[in-house]
Amino acid sequence: MKILAIDPGYERIGIAILEKKQGDKKEKVLYSECFKTSSKLPFTERLLLIGKKVEKIIKKYNPKVLAIEKLFFTTNQKTAMGVAEARGAIIYVCKKNGLQIFEYTPLQIKVATTGYGKARKDMVMDMIPKLVTINTIKKGDDELDAIAIGITCFACEKNILK
Amino acid sequence: MKILAIDPGYERIGIAILEKKQGDKKEKVLYSECFKTSSKLPFTERLLLIGKKVEKIIKKYNPKVLAIEKLFFTTNQKTAMGVAEARGAIIYVCKKNGLQIFEYTPLQIKVATTGYGKARKDMVMDMIPKLVTINTIKKGDDELDAIAIGITCFACEKNILK
Repeated sequence: MKILAIDPGYERIGIAILEKKQGDKKEKVLYSECFKTSSKLPFTERLLLIGKKVEKIIKKYNPKVLAIEKLFFTTNQKTAMGVAEARGAIIYVCKKNGLQIFEYTPLQIKVATTGYGKARKDMVMDMIPKLVTINTIKKGDDELDAIAIGITCFACEKNILK
Repeated sequence: MKILAIDPGYERIGIAILEKKQGDKKEKVLYSECFKTSSKLPFTERLLLIGKKVEKIIKKYNPKVLAIEKLFFTTNQKTAMGVAEARGAIIYVCKKNGLQIFEYTPLQIKVATTGYGKARKDMVMDMIPKLVTINTIKKGDDELDAIAIGITCFACEKNILK
């Protein structure tokens, strides 16, 4: 079972593909990337690039599930609106390609990766190589966030992701 | 030149197709509808239905432009997030189908339809049959909102929409 995990945004989007095969002890990170869109482009163009990127990854890896972070209320409404629009485009592309959608709050991600709801970001990051098989090339924060979301999905949906 | 005009939402989405042909004095409303999605469905399913509906209308009428209302900051962040996600899906579908995107604020829509930035909603609605050729069957508010957005687009983009 392969899942697509996304840390949504419009400037930097963390994308990862995780796989768990029968008999595997750990999930494996098959791919991860921090996809960036230029602030010089019109926002609608950035939405198009994000949706197309997600579509390309789906075609390449054929995941059955999207795990995505739930959007949080924030004091910066303008940024939040932009992230919500990006989320809308991403979810639409995934639904259209038949993926099942699971959404997680930051709290759920902290608990699933560290067992502690008040974990700091670095504590989550430190746990990732212990929880999944991952190559040792240094990865950026957004990629690691996406991987953490994928780990959360495998932990929370054990009955579905067999 | 045909344009697709949308009053974005996730519960009720106003959709209209307006056309202006060379020599026409007024734009003509070729189609309008208030598309609804059930609150009983998961939100991600509603996004899919909205995106598919927009895609269907594009295939049928082949508009070259999307005119859509800009999202406003609001006290109800949860609703605003949902509308932003719907907007993201709509804009993605339109961009992917090659439409040019124009966004308008409520102020721009009021000025374009009534000439008065503080116009009440009923004043905008009353102007619509005077500004466009439209059949006389009673239309709902969301449809009329979409038509007003389309009128605004023809008024603002005279140089483009020849």
